[in-house]
Amino acid sequence: MKKPLTVIKIGGNVVDNPEMLSCFISDFSQYNGDKILVHGGGKEATRMSAALGLETVMIEGRRVTDAATLEVVTMVYAGLVNKRVVAGLQAAGVDALGMTGADGHVVTGVRRNPVPIDYGFVGDLSPDGVNVSLLAGMLDNGVVPVMSAIAHDGKGQLLNCNADTVASTLAVAMSQERDVTLVYCFELPGVLSNPDDITSVIPYINESTFKELKSEGVVSGGMIPKITNAFNAINSGVGKVVIKHASGLLDNTATVICR
Amino acid sequence: MKKPLTVIKIGGNVVDNPEMLSCFISDFSQYNGDKILVHGGGKEATRMSAALGLETVMIEGRRVTDAATLEVVTMVYAGLVNKRVVAGLQAAGVDALGMTGADGHVVTGVRRNPVPIDYGFVGDLSPDGVNVSLLAGMLDNGVVPVMSAIAHDGKGQLLNCNADTVASTLAVAMSQERDVTLVYCFELPGVLSNPDDITSVIPYINESTFKELKSEGVVSGGMIPKITNAFNAINSGVGKVVIKHASGLLDNTATVICR
Repeated sequence: MKKPLTVIKIGGNVVDNPEMLSCFISDFSQYNGDKILVHGGGKEATRMSAALGLETVMIEGRRVTDAATLEVVTMVYAGLVNKRVVAGLQAAGVDALGMTGADGHVVTGVRRNPVPIDYGFVGDLSPDGVNVSLLAGMLDNGVVPVMSAIAHDGKGQLLNCNADTVASTLAVAMSQERDVTLVYCFELPGVLSNPDDITSVIPYINESTFKELKSEGVVSGGMIPKITNAFNAINSGVGKVVIKHASGLLDNTATVICR
Repeated sequence: MKKPLTVIKIGGNVVDNPEMLSCFISDFSQYNGDKILVHGGGKEATRMSAALGLETVMIEGRRVTDAATLEVVTMVYAGLVNKRVVAGLQAAGVDALGMTGADGHVVTGVRRNPVPIDYGFVGDLSPDGVNVSLLAGMLDNGVVPVMSAIAHDGKGQLLNCNADTVASTLAVAMSQERDVTLVYCFELPGVLSNPDDITSVIPYINESTFKELKSEGVVSGGMIPKITNAFNAINSGVGKVVIKHASGLLDNTATVICR
């Protein structure tokens, strides 16, 4: 039997809010077992770009990353946000170590094809590009990797990535050695059956109930690619995917996506 | 006999200049044996502060670091500069892993006493605050630590440090386990006996010749504290300290400071 591992992703709404981050760090420090944290930070990158007079261009929710924007996201994700999270975790007794994909060659990607849309220095990832042995060695030594969503191409170029994708890529890659649970922390306590009722969390979704939920229109919009990506991770080796509120890491309210 | 280790420090003049950095990375990749790189980045921090409308205040060459300036130096040193260096080293075949002192609890310091001068979030370091076993484990696994000059206090606070001091503190701490050479890369090929003659490098300085050089006025100004710090490192266990030009890492032109 493989040893369990949890890959937890938090977004800009957590890292950007000192109170939420402080609560999350406390919960994360109490979360049992081996764990990897992946964080976003898009809101602060947008604010920093504005302060430096750079225009933020988003296409389909993805940041177009020219050379100047890559400098901003590298500063904000790998510097400001990553070290804020790492220092907070260390104070909570978690032996956190922050990394981009370049550090220890841990996540190598390729620059996204500029056709049909040139996103600039944006990376596409594959589980083959993950340095599983480095991460496994760190976990075996009690170190908690804290990953910012920046990869490299191995040829000196940093690449801006989507934090959800970094998390799922790491989760799939680590499934070779571990029984992986992937947790997406979210602004809601899970997938709701009624968008107006925060208590209507759907506890479990499998592929057949997902089809029903889609056909009934219960699950729609941006939730469809999120759940589709979750099934892709599960079909590539991840044990289960959990969608829950960032402030509820230790409670049981969640949508669990599984086979 | 202890295994050799070289701790190499580069300053803002290297990391700030793409051609010099590229040459340095090539030389560093060919430098034999276990090594740790420590980098500054003050010039870019000053430029970024200016771009964000923050005034840079220096007292006796040290940056006064209020909360906003700490964010800038964290972004610039731990994000922009550190990841530029790491990605470049990875491309040159060096398995670099970038860190601040918070990462892996690797360098813990204390905030400098605000009396008589309040430098803000500036850290004082001691070799006792270095996580020697983490660094030794990384080196044994072929990983090259790349340290930015930011420590933490272990209670969640990041601290801005002087890169020369980070390098000497790491060198002294690692002397417990390794035979350490500390290399300060510099704008000159070594300590000059004639400031107008770049070929007048003094090859060796020990404590007795240092006294003579000072009394004769050959060594003066900012070079005195630099060499005094070198002797402090040597008297605390470091094998030797080398002062040389950043573009001459692989050649023999240098001032070697030893017992």
